[in-house]
Amino acid sequence: MSESEIASVNRQFEEAARKGDLDRLASLYTPDAMAVPPDSRVVKGRENIKQMWGGIAQQIGLKDVRLHTLDLQLAGDTAYEVGEATLTVANGSAVVNFVVVWKKIDGQWRLHRDIWNAKGA
Amino acid sequence: MSESEIASVNRQFEEAARKGDLDRLASLYTPDAMAVPPDSRVVKGRENIKQMWGGIAQQIGLKDVRLHTLDLQLAGDTAYEVGEATLTVANGSAVVNFVVVWKKIDGQWRLHRDIWNAKGA
Repeated sequence: MSESEIASVNRQFEEAARKGDLDRLASLYTPDAMAVPPDSRVVKGRENIKQMWGGIAQQIGLKDVRLHTLDLQLAGDTAYEVGEATLTVANGSAVVNFVVVWKKIDGQWRLHRDIWNAKGA
Repeated sequence: MSESEIASVNRQFEEAARKGDLDRLASLYTPDAMAVPPDSRVVKGRENIKQMWGGIAQQIGLKDVRLHTLDLQLAGDTAYEVGEATLTVANGSAVVNFVVVWKKIDGQWRLHRDIWNAKGA
């Protein structure tokens, strides 16, 4: 089931973020992934995404991430998810909404496009 | 060509935004579309998206929108786009990055998931 496979990758994402394992985090993206963080240019490729997450984690004091899928639709080897992430950070917590376009490559679902924004109060 | 069809819908989006034609703008989304503006809950469905755009346009004094596609990939009747939008607003201009998941329904490409954030300086 692709849904459970994608959920499993989301659990791996949470674990990698919690442990600060940037290599693992980057490996969950496709090689030609694009991430679109707020207040930034588009970030392309695993190495740049790894550096992006390192910078963000340090900047906000990231301790924990919980991903909650609101909607997930499949379209062949592509899927798209709308979700909410709760971040535990240095000075409390923050909630962001995200859209991830997933792509199945070599039998594994990987984040291919990743964009988020603050959910606000 | 799906690429040119999607580009054409983007031109219709710009025109509808410029004219403040909220019905037309909402009609470019799928009936079960989700929009994810910053500092907001997820907005579902054409009627709510119409109201969302009405609120945003009023709040920022929206005068013009220019959409620039950075990347567009097709996957059957689904497509996903990464792009940049330049907004002319009451007090100047603003640039946002966006990801749109497109869906072809009844032979027409429509925005199905739409999320953006500020690109920053």
